Amino acid sequence: MKETKIVLSEQDIPRSWYNIVADMPNKPLPPLNPATGEPISGDALAPLFPSGLIHQEVSQEPWIEIPDEVREIYALWRPTPMFRAWRLEKALDTPAKIFYKYEGVSPAGSHKPNTAVAQAWYNKQDGVTRITTETGAGQWGSALAFACQLFGIKCEVYMVRISYDQKPYRKLMMNTWNADVYPSPSDRTAAGRKILAEHPDSPGSLGIAISEAVEVAATNEDARYALGSVLNHVLLHQTVIGQEAIAQMEIAGEYPDIVVAPFGGGSNFAGLAFPFLRYHLTGERPIRAIAAEPTACPKLTRGVFRYDFGDTVGMTPLLPMYTLGHNFVPASIHAGGLRYHGAGVIVSQLLKDKLIEAQAVDQIDSFEAGVLFARSEGIIPAPEANHGIAVALREAEIARKEGKAKTILINLCGHGNFDMASYEAYFAGKLERLSLSQEEINDAVSKIDTPEIAG
Amino acid sequence: MKETKIVLSEQDIPRSWYNIVADMPNKPLPPLNPATGEPISGDALAPLFPSGLIHQEVSQEPWIEIPDEVREIYALWRPTPMFRAWRLEKALDTPAKIFYKYEGVSPAGSHKPNTAVAQAWYNKQDGVTRITTETGAGQWGSALAFACQLFGIKCEVYMVRISYDQKPYRKLMMNTWNADVYPSPSDRTAAGRKILAEHPDSPGSLGIAISEAVEVAATNEDARYALGSVLNHVLLHQTVIGQEAIAQMEIAGEYPDIVVAPFGGGSNFAGLAFPFLRYHLTGERPIRAIAAEPTACPKLTRGVFRYDFGDTVGMTPLLPMYTLGHNFVPASIHAGGLRYHGAGVIVSQLLKDKLIEAQAVDQIDSFEAGVLFARSEGIIPAPEANHGIAVALREAEIARKEGKAKTILINLCGHGNFDMASYEAYFAGKLERLSLSQEEINDAVSKIDTPEIAG
Repeated sequence: MKETKIVLSEQDIPRSWYNIVADMPNKPLPPLNPATGEPISGDALAPLFPSGLIHQEVSQEPWIEIPDEVREIYALWRPTPMFRAWRLEKALDTPAKIFYKYEGVSPAGSHKPNTAVAQAWYNKQDGVTRITTETGAGQWGSALAFACQLFGIKCEVYMVRISYDQKPYRKLMMNTWNADVYPSPSDRTAAGRKILAEHPDSPGSLGIAISEAVEVAATNEDARYALGSVLNHVLLHQTVIGQEAIAQMEIAGEYPDIVVAPFGGGSNFAGLAFPFLRYHLTGERPIRAIAAEPTACPKLTRGVFRYDFGDTVGMTPLLPMYTLGHNFVPASIHAGGLRYHGAGVIVSQLLKDKLIEAQAVDQIDSFEAGVLFARSEGIIPAPEANHGIAVALREAEIARKEGKAKTILINLCGHGNFDMASYEAYFAGKLERLSLSQEEINDAVSKIDTPEIAG
Repeated sequence: MKETKIVLSEQDIPRSWYNIVADMPNKPLPPLNPATGEPISGDALAPLFPSGLIHQEVSQEPWIEIPDEVREIYALWRPTPMFRAWRLEKALDTPAKIFYKYEGVSPAGSHKPNTAVAQAWYNKQDGVTRITTETGAGQWGSALAFACQLFGIKCEVYMVRISYDQKPYRKLMMNTWNADVYPSPSDRTAAGRKILAEHPDSPGSLGIAISEAVEVAATNEDARYALGSVLNHVLLHQTVIGQEAIAQMEIAGEYPDIVVAPFGGGSNFAGLAFPFLRYHLTGERPIRAIAAEPTACPKLTRGVFRYDFGDTVGMTPLLPMYTLGHNFVPASIHAGGLRYHGAGVIVSQLLKDKLIEAQAVDQIDSFEAGVLFARSEGIIPAPEANHGIAVALREAEIARKEGKAKTILINLCGHGNFDMASYEAYFAGKLERLSLSQEEINDAVSKIDTPEIAG
């Protein structure tokens, strides 16, 4: 029998997170205080994040030990399985060897709990009893709800109202895990009340929901705020994925020429790619790491590298990132997790230094790839995951034309069980191609009013 | 770190299915031809099932080899993980050791693909190009759609119209796997057209959908029919669950005093329990095997043992089973997979011989158990699975009162990702207690017009 699935036992759950900053030739530029333009210290983040996470956010150490209690919860789904995509390879008639690492086995169905559990633990150490966050379609909110419940921390989720009303199932998942979920804008915060006064029927936005969650954390001593991507400590926690994948590839007797993952803020991509990049940076094991972003939100392939706010309304420090501008509003594609205007700081620096690559994928192509994947491999992927699959299919086709048996590893970051309405829209021919014109890109970039980066 | 998850590698996927009939002290009584009252032979099933499955249906051999191609597809999710429920035990303050075997990791999210893949393979061997089936909420239909797709067989699913309209996501899952899904009653069959002529707005029923699927299979040489539970060969295929569980309990250094599983037609229960019962029947390793059925459909705890039809409309052979009568219509509980009037033949004989036990669970208690499970262990179970959990909780409470460290193993047969509306109804207090009165039971049983069983 051909080997299909490579599994590890729970003793193989990584013992440390890998901090790629330690090995980067050019370290990321510091975040700036938007009022003064001066670099800010970690202390400035204390009202929002617990000390352990702030330490990780600024750490230059290559390895940070994973607390036992976090590893014990990881054991509920980790190590995640890796698969050889025999049936997909056959369907593509490619000599490429395709593998995928499947993160959808977590209780929340995606890679997000890898950081949610860690964040909840560090909050618990600081005596935090309440964690606030925002969520759009609910993938991050449900991961944090799950994590908080296991530590007895109250989770307070501000969910964009239109998603709250139209997509009730992820909200119910959060309720099942004991979280309080509020449609945003809400009357619980000054930010929410201000919006409601002007627009009583506001459908909400991720920007508004962030403002509400941050306000509650900043103004309540028992509460802190949690973010599901972008920040250094979030990317750090996801590196368990790549570390396991290296061990699994070794069992398979292979090593990837290409690793590919969908790209929203960077945590999913970083999680798979950074542990492999460690050996790329030393020249020991060269690899191509490809971030797959949507053509509707192409900050890596068509954005600019400069300081910008991490949020829409401009409350965060200024971060050095590839961005389309914090006011850029991407089209409402179904891969909601990829609709973020900028790229995390570390990933942005790596791209600037040409140590990683990026490719953009149209949503129609992404669903075509996802359906082929489901019909070959069984798992129905999340719309976000379909972007990574689509890039892998492109590379497999190049391998076919070149007759080369390249090894490609995909981060299959989650299942599509809560996204079947997206597949329905695809099957019904209701999706549009969504490439931006150069004028639209220029227009978005010209509106950025934050500092440029010299050089 | 305490061991939480016990995993096996794909080399450990069982090589044979276990046929408990070989070891039963009293073999099941034969099915009868309803027209003649005489035992029927396997040949009578040829228009509906392929030869390999008919052979299994009547086999007395203890072990039936699993074809390599079936094992290769099982490897997409098998062996499934087993967990020690540390957090649930703590929440219950019980000395009982609770384990669960998790079948929700399959692409379709339940144990159903264990038999769907096998059935598709045996159909493929006979040159069948089309398999028909019925489905209610869609769990079985989606499993068969997945299996057929991997073998290039067309899957034709007759889905009860009210579910087709109200629960579109499982239908979309089937479409994603390339199946044709028709709302039943449909105009594709004589049975469907007859109903539509009388009731153009019929919401459909499982009975009607079975009639349609069977009619298409019986009247088309290229087509056969597939059933997701009840029949001997279906229960047989599920025994991979219990075989893996025995190996995993051995790794954990434990052996269950009690195994428990939800009960609809019997495949889920049989899958876990039969391999353990093998050692119970010899006296080598006594065990209590408990089937958890809903109080709304209590055929095992309150039904009668006699010949009855397997379907509502009376098209099947007469089967010796515990039944509430093939015309019994259970209340519309959310655990749709448990709303079946009878119990599979093998399980019925085992219950009659007091070799297994049964307990009934009210749906409100089942959801209470499921929510506690989700909040302790993370996984949100399917409503069907919640019945097994509820019985395990009862037994853990008895263990607590007795101060005994009993070992309990649950078959967690699927996740609840497509059932969040059921949890919503529970949280909103919209569920009713659904115990049947003795009059209702008497009334149902008195309507059975099929042969009694002597003794």
